[in-house]
Amino acid sequence: MPTFTFEQIRGVAVQVFAALGCPPDEAEIVGDALARANLAGHDSHGIIRVEQYARLVKEGSIVPGGPTTTERETACTALLDGGWNFGQVVARRAVELGIRKAREFGSGTISVKQSNHLGRLGEYTLMAAQEGMLCTATVNNHGRGNLVAPFGGSDGRLATNPISFACPGPDRPIVVDITTSVVAEGKVRILKNAGKQAPEGWLIDSNGNPTTNPQDLYGPPPGAILPFGGAVGHKGFALSVMVDILSGALSGAGCSHSSTCRLGNAMFFHILDPEKFVTRDEYDHWVSTLQTHIKGSPPAPGFSEILMPGEPEFRTEDRRRRDGIPVDDVTWQQFKACAAGIGVQFEL
Amino acid sequence: MPTFTFEQIRGVAVQVFAALGCPPDEAEIVGDALARANLAGHDSHGIIRVEQYARLVKEGSIVPGGPTTTERETACTALLDGGWNFGQVVARRAVELGIRKAREFGSGTISVKQSNHLGRLGEYTLMAAQEGMLCTATVNNHGRGNLVAPFGGSDGRLATNPISFACPGPDRPIVVDITTSVVAEGKVRILKNAGKQAPEGWLIDSNGNPTTNPQDLYGPPPGAILPFGGAVGHKGFALSVMVDILSGALSGAGCSHSSTCRLGNAMFFHILDPEKFVTRDEYDHWVSTLQTHIKGSPPAPGFSEILMPGEPEFRTEDRRRRDGIPVDDVTWQQFKACAAGIGVQFEL
Repeated sequence: MPTFTFEQIRGVAVQVFAALGCPPDEAEIVGDALARANLAGHDSHGIIRVEQYARLVKEGSIVPGGPTTTERETACTALLDGGWNFGQVVARRAVELGIRKAREFGSGTISVKQSNHLGRLGEYTLMAAQEGMLCTATVNNHGRGNLVAPFGGSDGRLATNPISFACPGPDRPIVVDITTSVVAEGKVRILKNAGKQAPEGWLIDSNGNPTTNPQDLYGPPPGAILPFGGAVGHKGFALSVMVDILSGALSGAGCSHSSTCRLGNAMFFHILDPEKFVTRDEYDHWVSTLQTHIKGSPPAPGFSEILMPGEPEFRTEDRRRRDGIPVDDVTWQQFKACAAGIGVQFEL
Repeated sequence: MPTFTFEQIRGVAVQVFAALGCPPDEAEIVGDALARANLAGHDSHGIIRVEQYARLVKEGSIVPGGPTTTERETACTALLDGGWNFGQVVARRAVELGIRKAREFGSGTISVKQSNHLGRLGEYTLMAAQEGMLCTATVNNHGRGNLVAPFGGSDGRLATNPISFACPGPDRPIVVDITTSVVAEGKVRILKNAGKQAPEGWLIDSNGNPTTNPQDLYGPPPGAILPFGGAVGHKGFALSVMVDILSGALSGAGCSHSSTCRLGNAMFFHILDPEKFVTRDEYDHWVSTLQTHIKGSPPAPGFSEILMPGEPEFRTEDRRRRDGIPVDDVTWQQFKACAAGIGVQFEL
């Protein structure tokens, strides 16, 4: 399997996005975000996405250079229209604005509509944490992506509706980044393509019965992914509803309703400056104490240590910085072909 | 089983709290909150708590009439010190302040320390929703209440760390109110006292192995409750960490660290006025569309309909308003004895 450095992947990805019509600073942002996803081990959000993004640009769904405009604003809130630019560009602008508001007024709450796919939500809460802030974020699909059943239901009515939270930690930030479904659709697709069964508790068929056959998700007729929670799946469902409303209703982009409406990422960010509440020392003391306390739990059978939220990704990042980022042949050839198709040639 | 009206329970509870030294308006607030918990079917947070609260007042842990003071404040944030008053009193004041800030500036983020037990967190997010607001809230125990294992751990290191969200809905508010553990400790205690087994996936013993014996939670040595999520328990754990930091570090009250520190409820409220983002019509349209869409899912086997978050409690409330609130004999006799002990006599 070919292996590359972060800088190599970032460099060629930036070239491709520039060739797709992104202004230079925006090409840097999108290329960087995809390379970072590969670095953290989230290959499903890495350069495998370039082909899809290139297609969406050609179709006019993604508008490179599309302006981010402010529709409504108060001292500590704003509603932004992303101009259907890349979600990575729009999300960064939203977080930058939220950080500025939080620095001045203690908190910034930013709602965003008309943006494309932002990739990993945790990338943006982490960005705020690296500036010393606490950030909670949610995203929905502008009402589309009906893959997840409501609790007690038998078909997909909700998107995977993720929630993320990040804050400064004692050594590295603490980063929560989860879907409110048991699993993302991509993982089911991988099992289906590999001819493997899904674990119990992931899926129901079109009659609402539990199934381990990944094909049952796609049908026809389609089944659904379950909200997370297992026996208490009403909790994951409840969080999904919360995410849908914060993202879709507060922005006006739309809550889950149709599988054929225009796909986008409606976003919600709440950014807080802890120093407007307590001293930095108090904050640091308690988060550090919490982390030490949690990590002190003797590992249960089958575990060797307790990892904080976000720690698995940081470890992958360290390893891939050292050993390189493996990219499977199919993805690499597709990426090169896509690049060549828009006039970008490179040898790595 | 004796059955009472909401007004009867509320009336006697208010008398008891007045006799315990609460100023009249505060006795009304605490009595009302407990009666409301009974009305909604959350009997574990209803008048069964009076005996415990009376003991805490006598011990000096709860300070009736304790002042709520503002330690830090910006246009849209505040850190409050609850003066160790009843949590019900402090939480209402925090939400009232958050609503005022949200009305003026779009959002109000309120952090609270030095408060006692607030009862049901959903009571306060609902209060904001009834004023037209969206409200997210979390609470921890000031660092105490180590009952829940971290993902991969074998002993209790976190409290049940609940999260709640409420917002206006098409007929009634939508109310999310969940612990980030599989279950609250009280439910395990009830099974233990009844000599029953716990469902699979709730508990681990002191070696970190799954168990269905409720006694294993208490030991000695004690086991732990699992974070919610089943096979993806890292998600419930991640949310618990987020709740602990928002509640305990932002307020300075303390994150989970010790089972012997002073018990309190540190609170976090984020209140938003949707009309600072979109029009009320846009907001209403999308939440109504979402609810209709979700409820349209054909029920899975074993279910007769899809209920929105909060709907089960509203139904219990309707039924108990009509048929009365049943209170078991033991609880009622304890309540009467407790009342008599502080000079409150009544016949119902």
